[in-house]
Amino acid sequence: MTKILNGKIVSDQILAALKKEIATKKQKNNQVPGLAVILVGEDPASTVYVRMKKKRCGEIGIQSFEYKLPADTKEQKIIDLIKKLNHDPEVHGILLQVPLPPGLNEEKLLSLIDPAKDVDGFHPINVGNLLLGRACFKSCTPYGVCKILEHYQIPTKGKHVVILGRSNIVGKPLAAMLIQKDMNATVTICHSQTQNLKDLTKQADILIAAIGKPLFVTSDMVKKNAIVIDVGINRVEDKNDPRGYKIVGDVDYDNVLPKASAITPVPGGVGAMTIAMLMTNTVRALP
Amino acid sequence: MTKILNGKIVSDQILAALKKEIATKKQKNNQVPGLAVILVGEDPASTVYVRMKKKRCGEIGIQSFEYKLPADTKEQKIIDLIKKLNHDPEVHGILLQVPLPPGLNEEKLLSLIDPAKDVDGFHPINVGNLLLGRACFKSCTPYGVCKILEHYQIPTKGKHVVILGRSNIVGKPLAAMLIQKDMNATVTICHSQTQNLKDLTKQADILIAAIGKPLFVTSDMVKKNAIVIDVGINRVEDKNDPRGYKIVGDVDYDNVLPKASAITPVPGGVGAMTIAMLMTNTVRALP
Repeated sequence: MTKILNGKIVSDQILAALKKEIATKKQKNNQVPGLAVILVGEDPASTVYVRMKKKRCGEIGIQSFEYKLPADTKEQKIIDLIKKLNHDPEVHGILLQVPLPPGLNEEKLLSLIDPAKDVDGFHPINVGNLLLGRACFKSCTPYGVCKILEHYQIPTKGKHVVILGRSNIVGKPLAAMLIQKDMNATVTICHSQTQNLKDLTKQADILIAAIGKPLFVTSDMVKKNAIVIDVGINRVEDKNDPRGYKIVGDVDYDNVLPKASAITPVPGGVGAMTIAMLMTNTVRALP
Repeated sequence: MTKILNGKIVSDQILAALKKEIATKKQKNNQVPGLAVILVGEDPASTVYVRMKKKRCGEIGIQSFEYKLPADTKEQKIIDLIKKLNHDPEVHGILLQVPLPPGLNEEKLLSLIDPAKDVDGFHPINVGNLLLGRACFKSCTPYGVCKILEHYQIPTKGKHVVILGRSNIVGKPLAAMLIQKDMNATVTICHSQTQNLKDLTKQADILIAAIGKPLFVTSDMVKKNAIVIDVGINRVEDKNDPRGYKIVGDVDYDNVLPKASAITPVPGGVGAMTIAMLMTNTVRALP
């Protein structure tokens, strides 16, 4: 029987532990972690994420500060806000929701966040320390993937992990995490230019898809009894769904399921982990 | 016939081009690049490297500033020196020769170097930008590997590059460079914990050894007509050599040579590239 790796269970467990930890810190040192979220514009997906982050903060005792700015906000205004938050002692984590509206320099703005408050782990200094195997904030989605593996006691040492995708927010930092001595995986990074892709994916003990292509990974690309982790969150048209669409992953779940020894569903897999790891980083950001 | 990838030729060509560029800059803007090298203690290999760097600077017109400090130098003194050099307008590159004597915090000291003068590419912010595919100083040895491939017009797009070794100065940054869109390689990172190593190395279109184990890569680990790049520089005893030792790479050169389509010798391969790339970074550090 294929094991279903339930990200909801793992994230609920992490959030429950954080809630306790936050309560203890409040009682002992009167410390309350604070997360500032900056949302520029009204991208529908971003608006949903920000609402969910705020809700989760409230549930576990993190103070949340929300800054909703119109899409035509001048860059300088965002710079000033980031600088103010960098110095605000009540704010321990700062999150600038991406993507930003056109005309705003994402790279520049993200690198203005104090690395010690960069709970998204997007600042180059955190990315660099991640690759170097040093203390840092780890980006939330790949960190969540590692936590799912840890929770289900899936060994990575010496295992061949094949990652599909080389994005700055998933593929690259995930590879950086997995090659460190605490994970000890052998890692192959594949992408759109990879030749003979199937030859490589079929060798994976653990196959991780993070390319944003609905149902891309088919059963014939997977080795029997592999662990399959699906990071994709794709909207596809679905006339039977009242919303007119449904959410699917990068893996053809129904067909891959019988071949894998374990698999993450979408939704309910990796997606549920991202916020839990954001909350974890925010609590770790307390002095 | 196996092609010998001659790092000496490539580096000489790079140095000659830099020399011209430096002369032009001097004439046009009265700009002279300056490199400060800090050597703490008397590690024999480091002493040789520092001497070679100084010599190369002189040959191509880079001003070199040498700071030789005794092994028992207090950390604060090095911190003060780095801070002074960070603000010195004649110094465009700062190199803290590693390894440092015991008791000195390498990680801390390296991260005090102004990232804009970090011509070794060891500062976490440069490492992070490297992984993120952004402008940065690239560490010299892996950068040299890429330049050898470029010089000999060895395509990397879609090719499977297998890297042996996950060090912070070679394996990790090299993987970070090769997965970017300008190189477009599919990259596998292997290390001491990798299972079935030979199965992986035999798939490599380009096999890169950077593990510091003399003659580790044997002929049976290499695919016919693979490109083999040897980053290793190991001293092994040799009674026939007047020094009592000789330098060999991580690859069993004599036996791998007939199987490879191209190979770097040791010495005369990658080793010659490191200083050329350091000089390149120093010239690029000019404002």
